[in-house]
Amino acid sequence: MRRRSNDNGNGMKALVLNQGKLCLKHVPDPVPSSGEGLVKILKVGICNTDLEMVKGYMPFSGILGHEFVGRVEEAPERKWIGQRIVSEINISCRTCAFCFRGETKHCPSRQVLGISKKDGVFAEYITLPMKNFYKLPENVSTSDGVFTEPLAAALEILEQVRITRETRVLVLGDGKLGMLIAQVLGLESDAVSCVGKHERHLKLLEKHGIQTALKGDALEPGFPLVIEATGNEEGLNEALRMVRPKGTVVLKSTFRGESSLDVSKVVVDEIHLIGSRCGPFPKAVDLLHSKRIDVQDMMDGDFPLEHFHDAFQLAKKPGALKVLLTPLKSEKTRNRS
Amino acid sequence: MRRRSNDNGNGMKALVLNQGKLCLKHVPDPVPSSGEGLVKILKVGICNTDLEMVKGYMPFSGILGHEFVGRVEEAPERKWIGQRIVSEINISCRTCAFCFRGETKHCPSRQVLGISKKDGVFAEYITLPMKNFYKLPENVSTSDGVFTEPLAAALEILEQVRITRETRVLVLGDGKLGMLIAQVLGLESDAVSCVGKHERHLKLLEKHGIQTALKGDALEPGFPLVIEATGNEEGLNEALRMVRPKGTVVLKSTFRGESSLDVSKVVVDEIHLIGSRCGPFPKAVDLLHSKRIDVQDMMDGDFPLEHFHDAFQLAKKPGALKVLLTPLKSEKTRNRS
Repeated sequence: MRRRSNDNGNGMKALVLNQGKLCLKHVPDPVPSSGEGLVKILKVGICNTDLEMVKGYMPFSGILGHEFVGRVEEAPERKWIGQRIVSEINISCRTCAFCFRGETKHCPSRQVLGISKKDGVFAEYITLPMKNFYKLPENVSTSDGVFTEPLAAALEILEQVRITRETRVLVLGDGKLGMLIAQVLGLESDAVSCVGKHERHLKLLEKHGIQTALKGDALEPGFPLVIEATGNEEGLNEALRMVRPKGTVVLKSTFRGESSLDVSKVVVDEIHLIGSRCGPFPKAVDLLHSKRIDVQDMMDGDFPLEHFHDAFQLAKKPGALKVLLTPLKSEKTRNRS
Repeated sequence: MRRRSNDNGNGMKALVLNQGKLCLKHVPDPVPSSGEGLVKILKVGICNTDLEMVKGYMPFSGILGHEFVGRVEEAPERKWIGQRIVSEINISCRTCAFCFRGETKHCPSRQVLGISKKDGVFAEYITLPMKNFYKLPENVSTSDGVFTEPLAAALEILEQVRITRETRVLVLGDGKLGMLIAQVLGLESDAVSCVGKHERHLKLLEKHGIQTALKGDALEPGFPLVIEATGNEEGLNEALRMVRPKGTVVLKSTFRGESSLDVSKVVVDEIHLIGSRCGPFPKAVDLLHSKRIDVQDMMDGDFPLEHFHDAFQLAKKPGALKVLLTPLKSEKTRNRS
């Protein structure tokens, strides 16, 4: 396979996590294996999971990052070369019982981009299986495309629970994921409420017909469906307080640490708790393509990869929306919408 | 309405829980309201929930007890008079949205026999709505009939999850409820395992084709369905360890206190946790009638109500099976199988 020639010569810049420390390093170029393409990273997003990873949520050392848009530079299938793509973040064996059932994201030997056993996208290049690729439509900007992965995660809820126009849904948390979830569920139900801490975020949601309340506002419990997307340990108990007996709580928060659970409350009220992780990329791409989901207002900054420190500082601030990183200056200019 | 004449004259013996103390008291006879029958208690069972109630699991003061068989002495509908019955323990308003949906056990204004807002059955008499009654078939002994309520609770699992002959099910806990659950699920699946602490209990389950293991034995994780019936706080984490990704954990334990929950594990593995409480009485009665469930070996003692102290001491012992109480000596002789 042909090796790319890099402006900087051999090797690339990459943001490496090691024992809780992030460092910009010069690392060897990745080399595609069989079935893989070489992808130039155009733009990446900082996810709350990345912030949790730095805190030690997972025992991972390597290049961080999993939300991105890239351009395929090399690939065994020529149709991909030159395409702007997004990619599933779970790389599965495709031979085990989980993969056989189509539950590839639960493959026990999976690698997960920038999270487990596979270098991530906070770098100039990555190699990925072509089977993970999805073409990003022309009318979706590179910045918007970075939202494909979290949007797919929001859409996973619709794969797990049935929602009708009348279903009263409460989303707890108005962070980036909570906002995407509220928007996605608002496409299916006319009765979505979101409780959050950030007036700016809630105002954005109100534009999309979501009812909103500030945390601490009196809100009548009794929702048949509550989505816990606060990202912290207290969210679970608040969700249990707000859900009705025989109702469902979908858990979306990942963080390091444990929550205390009133098991008897769950038993007596026969509540369903459903863990929910990655979701369907094709549907996410489709929503961005059809402009039914608006992510334009959800970005707070775009930094060169070298300025990762400032970018992470901003991303960590309470109320910060999506912070983007751009690995190559040349691409930044070429692809910004 | 005619008042019963009681051997002891007015008033009856009852086992009253007050601030964590159980006392045998002489209390006024209950008086049926509209739609209610007067039921003579023939035999009652001590449930783990009763033991938890004494520890303060619910803020209840009054006559304890909810597992029983009785004989109807007075009722507006004459067909009930003289019948041996069991009774649903939730007394619902039958007018609210929950009742309207058929979720009567979740009626917010419900009373629950010996648990919430309604005196229980550790007494000589009780009044109950006739709508809660189920006739106990002739071929079911009074002692066996006491198992109707916990058997219905075990059957609730089949209302909540789909089980086929091939479904690999793990029941955690070989207490009274765990044993009933293993038997009930063993009617649907050929691959039920139970992990417990009591060799005697596990031997009984093996007679019914249940695979068993002692707690601490190495057991391969990866069950699609795990039933948590240990009755303690550690059960939840063990269930999460044994269930496979996208699997289901049914929670049956009620106890005072909280469990710590690794929310991220639930999210990453997209596990379903389902609280499960009371279940369908008609199906439970039917299983006792058809003798498809064997409860004969699950009784460890039968005490006069007056000897409640000894009965509770026995019921509290690790490994104790069902302990029965008999309020009236005359009935005890007449009805024992």
